[in-house]
Amino acid sequence: MSSPRHFAPRSLEPPSGTRDFLASELRVRESAFATIRAVFERYGFDPLQTPAFERLDVLTGKYGDEGDKLIFKILRRGEHEASGEADLGLRYDLTVPLARVVGGYGSQLPSPYRRYAIGPVWRADRPGRGRFREFMQCDVDIVGSSAPLADAEVLCAIHDALATLGIAGFRFLVNSRQALSGLLHAYGVPAEIGGGVLIALDKLDKLTPDDVMAELERRRLAPATAKAIVHDLITDDAPERMRALLAKSERGQAGLADVDRLLELVAGAIPQERIAFTPHLVRGLDYYTGVVWEVVASDLPASLASGGRYDGLVAALGGPDLPAVGGSLGIERILAILPTRNDEADRIDIAVTLIDENGIADLMTLAAELRRGGLRVELYLGSSAKLARQLRWAADRRGRHALIYGHEERVAGEITVRDMDTGEQNRLPIDKVAAYLKGKE
Amino acid sequence: MSSPRHFAPRSLEPPSGTRDFLASELRVRESAFATIRAVFERYGFDPLQTPAFERLDVLTGKYGDEGDKLIFKILRRGEHEASGEADLGLRYDLTVPLARVVGGYGSQLPSPYRRYAIGPVWRADRPGRGRFREFMQCDVDIVGSSAPLADAEVLCAIHDALATLGIAGFRFLVNSRQALSGLLHAYGVPAEIGGGVLIALDKLDKLTPDDVMAELERRRLAPATAKAIVHDLITDDAPERMRALLAKSERGQAGLADVDRLLELVAGAIPQERIAFTPHLVRGLDYYTGVVWEVVASDLPASLASGGRYDGLVAALGGPDLPAVGGSLGIERILAILPTRNDEADRIDIAVTLIDENGIADLMTLAAELRRGGLRVELYLGSSAKLARQLRWAADRRGRHALIYGHEERVAGEITVRDMDTGEQNRLPIDKVAAYLKGKE
Repeated sequence: MSSPRHFAPRSLEPPSGTRDFLASELRVRESAFATIRAVFERYGFDPLQTPAFERLDVLTGKYGDEGDKLIFKILRRGEHEASGEADLGLRYDLTVPLARVVGGYGSQLPSPYRRYAIGPVWRADRPGRGRFREFMQCDVDIVGSSAPLADAEVLCAIHDALATLGIAGFRFLVNSRQALSGLLHAYGVPAEIGGGVLIALDKLDKLTPDDVMAELERRRLAPATAKAIVHDLITDDAPERMRALLAKSERGQAGLADVDRLLELVAGAIPQERIAFTPHLVRGLDYYTGVVWEVVASDLPASLASGGRYDGLVAALGGPDLPAVGGSLGIERILAILPTRNDEADRIDIAVTLIDENGIADLMTLAAELRRGGLRVELYLGSSAKLARQLRWAADRRGRHALIYGHEERVAGEITVRDMDTGEQNRLPIDKVAAYLKGKE
Repeated sequence: MSSPRHFAPRSLEPPSGTRDFLASELRVRESAFATIRAVFERYGFDPLQTPAFERLDVLTGKYGDEGDKLIFKILRRGEHEASGEADLGLRYDLTVPLARVVGGYGSQLPSPYRRYAIGPVWRADRPGRGRFREFMQCDVDIVGSSAPLADAEVLCAIHDALATLGIAGFRFLVNSRQALSGLLHAYGVPAEIGGGVLIALDKLDKLTPDDVMAELERRRLAPATAKAIVHDLITDDAPERMRALLAKSERGQAGLADVDRLLELVAGAIPQERIAFTPHLVRGLDYYTGVVWEVVASDLPASLASGGRYDGLVAALGGPDLPAVGGSLGIERILAILPTRNDEADRIDIAVTLIDENGIADLMTLAAELRRGGLRVELYLGSSAKLARQLRWAADRRGRHALIYGHEERVAGEITVRDMDTGEQNRLPIDKVAAYLKGKE
């Protein structure tokens, strides 16, 4: 993020929690989005774009009480403005709009509907380091298929996006909602505290085993059971141990079978070391119904992507009752670990200096030709007629070449081409300049 | 715009005045934006992206009373929500955010600052045919240069964008604020009705000469003068006639000189028949200070682009006092005359059928290879095991080729490749399929 110079008055800053993106950073972001879009397109996902705001009744009641408070609400207009009531809200995620579209367009959509969406969402969260009120989301979902292959396609698309972006050392952790039920059953966890136990176990990545045990006890799990579960989940052979345990219950077996089927389906597309059954992975209990997964990378505290099957969600969000599976890239987190500028993309190709007023028409014609050839060309627009000043501008703009066309050159029908990196200068007939520069760039 | 099927309940439609963009139309739009971006980049313009909302005090008082009423206002949050007060507003255009950024980032920006911005803006206008509450704007501006060359660069960038988009038969109409003053002076129009007279004259493109004369008289211009002005402006030799008239006043001369300088500067880049001095062109009196222009196309009632020099505006909008010149593409109008779908871009390359459960792993591996090669590949996710049903799906998805891998093929280590356009089928060894299809696509 580029931040306004520190002495800018507050009125010149963007609103709290939002960002202005200047050229360098914006180019890096746009190029990442283009990479992701290209990957999703290769999987046959169709792009979808919905409005920034939705009717408020479409949004409220979908994100829980805490979520509802974070919706930016838009005042009614005209004579109704004075009522202080809101009728619209900025979208909070890309999933509720998806549910609305699936309901609204029905048979106009392919079946199943594979869609991707990359766009901003808004949440009135307390702004903080790496936490924004306007941020990008980047989702792929398949609505209308309960095939395990659909889970595999989503997971592979997310994998390819991360790999193509050049993210190093990332891994998929995979589990399933049924396997978690089987786990609770195997340790005899009472149903009424099951949810709390899973929430605590999900923290094994972030907290110490002792802290997780303490939390389990606070959640009223018997100390001996808490100790046993935590021990079994953190030993080196935890996956094998859990496989044996889960085999003992029907739900456990079913969950494990879903996980294994997924691992088998993606085996041809994802290197084995990048994906593993992870029995303590929980994720959003509330709406996932089948396989769940997240992507972690060494050295990063938060996940880079996550997803899973959520067969009841589209209906719960106001759409038709269709099975669905999806994945979401934590794109702001991913952007934060990519380089924030691409020096080469920020350069201009040709800086055209103007020291002889009579030469402007010739230079405009040449600039038009160079631009038609795809070069990035800028003409000097300042008020100085001094070449040294104009070359300083060319250097500031990080031009690869500068063109110089003074009286002497003009009379000879030539142009001086200066290589801004080496300082080397060449004088060429004006009609040879375009071909010369195209060869160079 | 794709509209929800007619039997969708209102709750499944996007909010009034906004649109959902499904794949076909969205691809056409995104491809137009990419074309425009590439043109602007060639001119050395830097991209800028600002938040969807601004603090309300940044927005209000900038668009006149009528404009202020059209701002979507965002309710304060948390304990302040009940106050019914707003503190943020959705951006109404891309110019006020530009003024804020120029003020806020100062020397971090190149000087002059050439920027382009393509993004949505929101106005609570009464929705109607071709009039939306969320629509795209697409601006180029140069802040910090008063050189006529800056005007020329903006105009050429807009020209190239329209030409590259493939818009046919468009023309630039050029005039200047000073020339308009000279015109009023030449006909002895009293200063206090000058603004109204210009507003009426601007309608010569849309109304009959008689209607314009009537409006001029309503605006208290003497009937004889009204008749003379209108007559002189619509005769075939109006430009020559006006040149002679304007030469009689200092402002008229200065304005004409600005127009002629611009025409001269763009001569090498814009074909002569696409641009002309147009003495009755007025455009936003309020903030333009120098040359003004707009782009019209035969058969289209509204302009496709417009712009001009607005030296006082950045300061008036809360930024520093810098000269500026800009242009804006009427991108929604332009999109409305482009084809709304690109059939080829909507097709998938390979539809992979699945009729033998045991073949899935092989097909996933092949799909991964094809996708790495850049092909758009989709696997059948439905529940039917019938080939005919699956080929119907492949046709619905408009696949170029379908892959068939039944028991027979699997035993032979081969795949049947079906050309979906011709129906022709070829059986190939599985490891030759990728090379074969890459050669075809």
